[in-house]
Amino acid sequence: MKKVNIGTNAFLYPMPVTLVGSLVEGRPNFMAVAWVSRVNSMPPILGAAINQRHHTPQGIQENQSFSVNIPSLELMEKTDYCGLVSGREQDKSDLFEIFYGELKTAPMIQECPLCLECKLLQVVPLPTNSLYLGEIVGAYSEERYLTDGKPDIRKMNPFVLTMPDNRYWKVGDPAGSAWTIGKNLKKG
Amino acid sequence: MKKVNIGTNAFLYPMPVTLVGSLVEGRPNFMAVAWVSRVNSMPPILGAAINQRHHTPQGIQENQSFSVNIPSLELMEKTDYCGLVSGREQDKSDLFEIFYGELKTAPMIQECPLCLECKLLQVVPLPTNSLYLGEIVGAYSEERYLTDGKPDIRKMNPFVLTMPDNRYWKVGDPAGSAWTIGKNLKKG
Repeated sequence: MKKVNIGTNAFLYPMPVTLVGSLVEGRPNFMAVAWVSRVNSMPPILGAAINQRHHTPQGIQENQSFSVNIPSLELMEKTDYCGLVSGREQDKSDLFEIFYGELKTAPMIQECPLCLECKLLQVVPLPTNSLYLGEIVGAYSEERYLTDGKPDIRKMNPFVLTMPDNRYWKVGDPAGSAWTIGKNLKKG
Repeated sequence: MKKVNIGTNAFLYPMPVTLVGSLVEGRPNFMAVAWVSRVNSMPPILGAAINQRHHTPQGIQENQSFSVNIPSLELMEKTDYCGLVSGREQDKSDLFEIFYGELKTAPMIQECPLCLECKLLQVVPLPTNSLYLGEIVGAYSEERYLTDGKPDIRKMNPFVLTMPDNRYWKVGDPAGSAWTIGKNLKKG
């Protein structure tokens, strides 16, 4: 089949949905962020790409910390709201039950099945966004979301995003074991 | 419910699965990468975090380019193989039908429903990995994967990864409209 060039503003399919937490002028704020990825193995480092015009960068810079929270499907409406409205316009600090970890300045969301507490290591400035690189200093979950001590995506029930059609999707059925099912193709 | 600290080596749920293509000493090579994200709006920039010991970084540096290909579920076994075996050990250039875009040095995979051609802009060195930031200069798909000119995840049928349980998952049902369903929560 013939390939067509669909232009340059293309995306990954799908993207994880997170809520980035920060303390801006002392007030907890949460922003929906899907441009986020692990970027380093050891120590564990995350990167979150955020438009410089947003409210959140101020809080990250002020406290040199932030959190990355994975919401479950039940929090989809609140998560979407956090992506629609700036903390400059509306107070989002009362949307969730908030807790803190060892950094004391990275607000995390009690209702989220997994919360990653990050210490800012580096900011990579880019044309419209900045990439905030943070070392994960703690990850908080609950026994009910774990299987064999590891987060279980079926129990967490997160959701994902596609752009530019701007839709959320559930995670589906298991498809295979990673670093395993490709062994059949090894040569020799 | 009480939160438990599960340690620092935590991940996002779920992560997109991609194949990063590069030309290493003139030979096309593909590596499975899930630590990848858009990082800038305009111009469109992607980041891919790759362990420095891998074969791929050599190719990216040599040609100042790479590709990010989104495999469909049908390619899961080949994708997993590309994450298991280094291009130093086995020739992966014959696994897929390969094509090139305008850069001529970023091999892309004909069988993948979406291929992003990237020009290297910057390398951010990190302790174990490097983050390769590339501007998307072309995105290649096929009419059969598009709806209203945009990639349609239901037609593309990609899959996602969870770590550290190392499992692949299908994408599930639609869950809602982004930047829309949260409007109900707006105050005033």
